[in-house]
Amino acid sequence: MKKQFAQQLFAAHAQASSSVPRSAICQFMDNTLQLLFPELAEQKFNSEKDILLHLDLLEQDLIKILTGMPLPQHLVPALLAKNFITQLPFIYDLLLKDAEAIASEDPAAQNIDEVIRTYPGFLAIAIHRLAHALHQLQVPLLPRILSEAAHTKTGIDIHPGAKIGSYFCIDHGTGIVIGETTVIGNHVKIYQGVTLGAMSVAKEMARIKRHPTIEDYVVIYAGATILGGNTVVGSNSIIGGNVWLTESVPPYSRLYHKAQIRVSRSEDPEDSIVFSI
Amino acid sequence: MKKQFAQQLFAAHAQASSSVPRSAICQFMDNTLQLLFPELAEQKFNSEKDILLHLDLLEQDLIKILTGMPLPQHLVPALLAKNFITQLPFIYDLLLKDAEAIASEDPAAQNIDEVIRTYPGFLAIAIHRLAHALHQLQVPLLPRILSEAAHTKTGIDIHPGAKIGSYFCIDHGTGIVIGETTVIGNHVKIYQGVTLGAMSVAKEMARIKRHPTIEDYVVIYAGATILGGNTVVGSNSIIGGNVWLTESVPPYSRLYHKAQIRVSRSEDPEDSIVFSI
Amino acid sequence: MKKQFAQQLFAAHAQASSSVPRSAICQFMDNTLQLLFPELAEQKFNSEKDILLHLDLLEQDLIKILTGMPLPQHLVPALLAKNFITQLPFIYDLLLKDAEAIASEDPAAQNIDEVIRTYPGFLAIAIHRLAHALHQLQVPLLPRILSEAAHTKTGIDIHPGAKIGSYFCIDHGTGIVIGETTVIGNHVKIYQGVTLGAMSVAKEMARIKRHPTIEDYVVIYAGATILGGNTVVGSNSIIGGNVWLTESVPPYSRLYHKAQIRVSRSEDPEDSIVFSI
Amino acid sequence: MKKQFAQQLFAAHAQASSSVPRSAICQFMDNTLQLLFPELAEQKFNSEKDILLHLDLLEQDLIKILTGMPLPQHLVPALLAKNFITQLPFIYDLLLKDAEAIASEDPAAQNIDEVIRTYPGFLAIAIHRLAHALHQLQVPLLPRILSEAAHTKTGIDIHPGAKIGSYFCIDHGTGIVIGETTVIGNHVKIYQGVTLGAMSVAKEMARIKRHPTIEDYVVIYAGATILGGNTVVGSNSIIGGNVWLTESVPPYSRLYHKAQIRVSRSEDPEDSIVFSI
Amino acid sequence: MKKQFAQQLFAAHAQASSSVPRSAICQFMDNTLQLLFPELAEQKFNSEKDILLHLDLLEQDLIKILTGMPLPQHLVPALLAKNFITQLPFIYDLLLKDAEAIASEDPAAQNIDEVIRTYPGFLAIAIHRLAHALHQLQVPLLPRILSEAAHTKTGIDIHPGAKIGSYFCIDHGTGIVIGETTVIGNHVKIYQGVTLGAMSVAKEMARIKRHPTIEDYVVIYAGATILGGNTVVGSNSIIGGNVWLTESVPPYSRLYHKAQIRVSRSEDPEDSIVFSI
Amino acid sequence: MKKQFAQQLFAAHAQASSSVPRSAICQFMDNTLQLLFPELAEQKFNSEKDILLHLDLLEQDLIKILTGMPLPQHLVPALLAKNFITQLPFIYDLLLKDAEAIASEDPAAQNIDEVIRTYPGFLAIAIHRLAHALHQLQVPLLPRILSEAAHTKTGIDIHPGAKIGSYFCIDHGTGIVIGETTVIGNHVKIYQGVTLGAMSVAKEMARIKRHPTIEDYVVIYAGATILGGNTVVGSNSIIGGNVWLTESVPPYSRLYHKAQIRVSRSEDPEDSIVFSI
Repeated sequence: MKKQFAQQLFAAHAQASSSVPRSAICQFMDNTLQLLFPELAEQKFNSEKDILLHLDLLEQDLIKILTGMPLPQHLVPALLAKNFITQLPFIYDLLLKDAEAIASEDPAAQNIDEVIRTYPGFLAIAIHRLAHALHQLQVPLLPRILSEAAHTKTGIDIHPGAKIGSYFCIDHGTGIVIGETTVIGNHVKIYQGVTLGAMSVAKEMARIKRHPTIEDYVVIYAGATILGGNTVVGSNSIIGGNVWLTESVPPYSRLYHKAQIRVSRSEDPEDSIVFSI
Repeated sequence: MKKQFAQQLFAAHAQASSSVPRSAICQFMDNTLQLLFPELAEQKFNSEKDILLHLDLLEQDLIKILTGMPLPQHLVPALLAKNFITQLPFIYDLLLKDAEAIASEDPAAQNIDEVIRTYPGFLAIAIHRLAHALHQLQVPLLPRILSEAAHTKTGIDIHPGAKIGSYFCIDHGTGIVIGETTVIGNHVKIYQGVTLGAMSVAKEMARIKRHPTIEDYVVIYAGATILGGNTVVGSNSIIGGNVWLTESVPPYSRLYHKAQIRVSRSEDPEDSIVFSI
Repeated sequence: MKKQFAQQLFAAHAQASSSVPRSAICQFMDNTLQLLFPELAEQKFNSEKDILLHLDLLEQDLIKILTGMPLPQHLVPALLAKNFITQLPFIYDLLLKDAEAIASEDPAAQNIDEVIRTYPGFLAIAIHRLAHALHQLQVPLLPRILSEAAHTKTGIDIHPGAKIGSYFCIDHGTGIVIGETTVIGNHVKIYQGVTLGAMSVAKEMARIKRHPTIEDYVVIYAGATILGGNTVVGSNSIIGGNVWLTESVPPYSRLYHKAQIRVSRSEDPEDSIVFSI
Repeated sequence: MKKQFAQQLFAAHAQASSSVPRSAICQFMDNTLQLLFPELAEQKFNSEKDILLHLDLLEQDLIKILTGMPLPQHLVPALLAKNFITQLPFIYDLLLKDAEAIASEDPAAQNIDEVIRTYPGFLAIAIHRLAHALHQLQVPLLPRILSEAAHTKTGIDIHPGAKIGSYFCIDHGTGIVIGETTVIGNHVKIYQGVTLGAMSVAKEMARIKRHPTIEDYVVIYAGATILGGNTVVGSNSIIGGNVWLTESVPPYSRLYHKAQIRVSRSEDPEDSIVFSI
Repeated sequence: MKKQFAQQLFAAHAQASSSVPRSAICQFMDNTLQLLFPELAEQKFNSEKDILLHLDLLEQDLIKILTGMPLPQHLVPALLAKNFITQLPFIYDLLLKDAEAIASEDPAAQNIDEVIRTYPGFLAIAIHRLAHALHQLQVPLLPRILSEAAHTKTGIDIHPGAKIGSYFCIDHGTGIVIGETTVIGNHVKIYQGVTLGAMSVAKEMARIKRHPTIEDYVVIYAGATILGGNTVVGSNSIIGGNVWLTESVPPYSRLYHKAQIRVSRSEDPEDSIVFSI
Repeated sequence: MKKQFAQQLFAAHAQASSSVPRSAICQFMDNTLQLLFPELAEQKFNSEKDILLHLDLLEQDLIKILTGMPLPQHLVPALLAKNFITQLPFIYDLLLKDAEAIASEDPAAQNIDEVIRTYPGFLAIAIHRLAHALHQLQVPLLPRILSEAAHTKTGIDIHPGAKIGSYFCIDHGTGIVIGETTVIGNHVKIYQGVTLGAMSVAKEMARIKRHPTIEDYVVIYAGATILGGNTVVGSNSIIGGNVWLTESVPPYSRLYHKAQIRVSRSEDPEDSIVFSI
């Protein structure tokens, strides 16, 4: 029995492709964030030249990671890495806008420094924008490992394929799920527990848009669930907490539960009345 | 004051039973997962003999952990460990089926490799199946430490007592809570934020079934809450997002909110209309 | 392009204030918890004198951390640290009551030891009470770094400003959000996914109460959302799962969805009927 | 065969006394040196109170180490530790004098800071003085573990039993051996490769003085060997390099080889002459 | 210039053979010593079965190390490793005898435990006997890496090719050098700084015996140098300190310097007399 | 007493200059060696560009180390670092010649790879050449910390001030001491335990040449001691083992002890005769 099990396991181990260097990947992500944001840096950079050097170093590290992975033939590690580094200034620019959006939206935030240093929403979007750039370059597996690392740290699960506009603001964020083909406009704000998901679909639909589109200036409150590839939330809409939405709504919509809630006012818990609020 | 506090703390420390070796436990769990899944392994195993050896090593490590813990007299570390190892092939088999279920259900999953490597839902069920085996052997504390480790990593909180059938599929998963006496059938799929919980019950009811039963082929969407030890969700049912269910429903039920939602279409946010969707 | 980006990054790094020692802060928090709770301790303390010594050591470590941070002029590290240590006995007392509350409420909890060792809800409240003491002393940044560390480990997000009474009980807890100006009474119990939040407010309102007040003996079930600085949940109330509440309710209220749910009983999934439960 | 070997090894392991915590011992030594010498410290101490605290901490750490070791019954860890700490100021005073002696003797030494920071001779005598204090308190094994740690780091092997006076100066030092019953006066200077050893003696002589006595102001050059418990090198003597001495010499002796050396001056290596220098 | 240098370095790096896993090798050596000697073990072994398991594990680890190295074709990792493990009982037996020899010879040694735990001479011979076994199996590089690790830790440099009999005793040991083709009998004792070396020889002589033969029961005191492949030190001889020997001596020889030493007795250092001792 | 001691220690700690980053220094040295020699590298370098990048990185790391140290005003970290890096190709060239010299001289060396990987003599000269370059640039403390690190690892103590020619060969090496003002020519070979030292001199002589000059093609055997700033060993000389030399010798000298040695041939150890060999 045990011997047979060992055979089975060994067969699985023997045919496994060359392992993806998970710790090197996490180090790469961490180094990138430390270079971009002094609030997260563990070392001082001395000069512009020192920064340039570490940008080059990131590029080399990425080449090494990609070289160790099973890539499709048409993808060349050195070209992918160069391309990624070239995008960093744009990503950095987007992230500063995200931090601004959070700082200006959350009354509890004292300043942008505090946002960058302590907001899980900022960390999640920062890692997402890095992972998304790699996803756009068709790099396999690596973007997903990055997004899962962000998920573990922040409880925020953004598929690297999701397209997210500028000034994106996540408050708190635990439990947020944003699916692979989601499209989000600019100045969107999302609270904890929001799902931008797919209807349960057949595997064959993997290549079509399965997740919703959120237009500019939309706010989605905690626990709302918005599903479906054809679902469009029009610009300037507000989606209330715990709303369950599977159809499009036009711009300037305000959706919230007109909930029936039962309330008891008496001190005898058995004696309850029902009314709406 | 301070001296009195020190006395109080020292009294607490002095009477504490021998400490449970937390880091050894996490190492044991990690070694087990690395042995079972090449996708998670940090080393290459050379041969069937090497695998067999590491199986024996797991057994010895478990003996050491159990020897350091305050066990009831009728539990013998060496027998518990042997028993656990004997169950590993069955657990492995179940976990391959879980990975298959996730890979075939989630359009975003490229293959089983990616599922094993990056899906928190897979990690959570993997650790649960190991913890559950130890829980069935009546090992105290250890299963709970494993399940909390999984909770911290994945945001998925499954009590080691929960009985879960084969082909179990968790998608995303942050915020899922599955209680101690839950029973789940085969081919069940659960989304993020789902609670399978107890009604608030008196402590005296600790020994009776307090959590629901989910039959085969049920799908439960994000944010649904199903409570109570007598609540049975019949096979092939679909429980919609955010549904709150405290009573049984028969097979082939489809439950979802027929929500009343107020919507404003005009650009003047004060001008809103109410309608149902 | 790259050179310009390096200039931009270097300018940001050059003007960054002296870095906050994140690892020292986490070590401090960990040491404090290990000293208070033998269940979490990695070392044995030999004597009352040894405990006293480690209390003094905590004080010195806190002085070092505070000395490295940009503090307002009127805050003196040595005085802040002395004040914090003086409060530890009271915090310890509160935490033992919290552990008791969890152990007596959760049928799955075997004893207080298990609660302290494995309940994320206990860990979250423990770190909160430490962070809150520092927040009350007007220490900047440090309390937020502690609360985010707790958030990452437990999925429970409590702003250090929140005032929480004794015998506070969090069950499971992933996805709980408790805002900065929340006030919670004694003997309150909160389930996973509960938000005690603010209505979306203008940044100018940062200094006023934006989050709700929860009175004594209230229970709030999973997924409920309670918003607004004027919202008061009266004592002994029960707030049902997924309830969305933005107005005050009097004592002894029982609120829950009177949900309309559509159910299909036939085995033909197309054939569904609608009824209320 | 293999099974028999395993039996043999297991028997040895099973009867081994409780292990001595080697890493804790090295940490203790390192902490002591860091507290005494800012040149070796990895942290800043904030105040006199902080120093006092770390002195107490050293005492507690030593208690823990001693508690884990098989001590003779009449030795009480807490008393030994208190005694050791009480001696620290005297040891510190001696070590400052040693550093002074090295700095004033070695033309290559820039200042006392450099001596403390980089001279292996200083490190060796520093660890020796700590180990010797423990040896005097009859603590078993611990002093030898300390002296071997010093030996590994510096190549200087001083038995913890050796009695060494003030202003002791070791230059370079690799290969120095100083035996258990050696007695060294004040202002003695010793070069690399010097042995202060025993004649090969029977095991029965373990309790008598087997190693030499070196009086004040003696200099012993590289490679000299001085042997025997009755051998006394009188004060102010100079022992030349590679001298082999097994008898006493009076004060103000100057001993050096009157070597016969053969020298060839011609360029033909076969053509050599002999002369004395 | 710099670019040219980078080209040169890259060329060197590019043609380097697959790297030898140095840290894995050190771990392997350490694990072997921990398994053989409880005095050096950091973990408890629970049972004979646990020991057997770790013997198998050592074998697998050695296979992995050898597989990663550039081996001659006729050497098969699995066979080499099996052979090495088979020799362990004999090596263990020899090492116990070595420890006995040291404990019985050195009056300062309290018991065998102390010898195994703290004597660098024991550590050096232990690592040598392991390295020699691998050298006999014609494994390249690995034995030399082991012997250099021992050299760094103990200052004792024994080439893995040296053949050393039983009951070998090294006292202190720093500076000992024992060359590749040295042959040492049983019950030999060697002090610090002894060299058993080669006359300076042409590279072509690499394959012949270049280092001396030391017969049974020989003692060689500190600093003695014995050179040459034809030099035989007859049994029961004693070689005095700093003796320089390049010819054979018969059994029962006693060699020591009949040194001429100049001594001054007056307090005026200029006034010196010459005499022999 | 204790309080007074704490005051004394605190005063010492308070006035200590900013600490020298010892671990950063060791890392820098290690990185340099890994970049120069693939035999010592733990990572693969992908391309010439990757090498160039790591050269720049070494430069930045050195700037950081130097910035943290108390430098004389006329020394600018960035210029020192640039200068050091510029010298690396020359140092590399010298080190390849050193490795060649060792490989061609030592019959036990299989090839240059083995020399670079396992010979302590090579490691010592490699670190010396790096430290010497920094010493020439008048950098304080840093060169000495490097040379002491080499001393600890290899037992070979070379002052960073020593000037050493090309094709330098150290065999074994433990116990070698080479003083600050030593000058060594090309093709010199030195064995273990050799001292190139100063006569004991007054501190005032620190600025003059105190150590010997060794001309080209000299071989110095184990344990020889050569002292004094005016002592010149002429080219092509051979200095025998344990020779003690304080005067100059002309080129082509061959010096060795014409030792008188007493030998006993009978089996009765009391019966000894004296003869010369």
